[in-house]
Amino acid sequence: MAETVFDKIVAGEIPCHKVYEDEKVLAFLDVNPLSEGHTLVIPKVHAETLDEVPEDYAAALGAALPKIARAILKVTGAKAYNVLQNNGAGAHQAVMYVHFHIIPKYPDGAGLGIVWQPRPLSGGEVLAREIAAAIDA
Amino acid sequence: MAETVFDKIVAGEIPCHKVYEDEKVLAFLDVNPLSEGHTLVIPKVHAETLDEVPEDYAAALGAALPKIARAILKVTGAKAYNVLQNNGAGAHQAVMYVHFHIIPKYPDGAGLGIVWQPRPLSGGEVLAREIAAAIDA
Repeated sequence: MAETVFDKIVAGEIPCHKVYEDEKVLAFLDVNPLSEGHTLVIPKVHAETLDEVPEDYAAALGAALPKIARAILKVTGAKAYNVLQNNGAGAHQAVMYVHFHIIPKYPDGAGLGIVWQPRPLSGGEVLAREIAAAIDA
Repeated sequence: MAETVFDKIVAGEIPCHKVYEDEKVLAFLDVNPLSEGHTLVIPKVHAETLDEVPEDYAAALGAALPKIARAILKVTGAKAYNVLQNNGAGAHQAVMYVHFHIIPKYPDGAGLGIVWQPRPLSGGEVLAREIAAAIDA
């Protein structure tokens, strides 16, 4: 495994602006935020992408997100926010250690910019059946 | 509470292209996908935004995401993907029922477009302390 800056933060070798920690999860401010309160939420186990996260850590991440989001909204006064989690360099992942971004969105536009170019769904019935069949037992 | 299309899907009143279901979570193909395999993952309880999701449902959502992502990657052959969850009209939320998007990203660019304009963090120490103090006990 390639050691990343987040491995070092979890190991306590580099400091962070911590906002939350429990047995399985650590959250801290992004040092290059898109907006005030931009926070990163990571598991305290090394995984590069979300599909590699053990189920108990994934559940702990899920449980932590609303808690941390509520605290960010309370402190920043933001009324809207995006949760983003990028997997793979092709999908804008910069640090190869799985992380959720919580990014407040402000009326002046500060926050995440999204480009949304949908296309009509075709072959959905077959595709859904194939994905459903590929879920781990 | 305002009833949304996702309330009706959970109630079985409208069909969906289901890819996963457990006691607390339902996942189905987005009918206006950004790319092949674009899937929505929702709790089987009404909540408008992530900060309103009860902890047990939030944990179930977290646990389901890697499972569903693995199946999507296997079937579509995508090597990268984004997980996105929008809260509030100002943050691009279109259906007012909390949902995670799993959006495969393909080499031809199909998938989520991200605009990333970071600014340097200032006052991080104070802000982190304030957010940490605002986390629910």
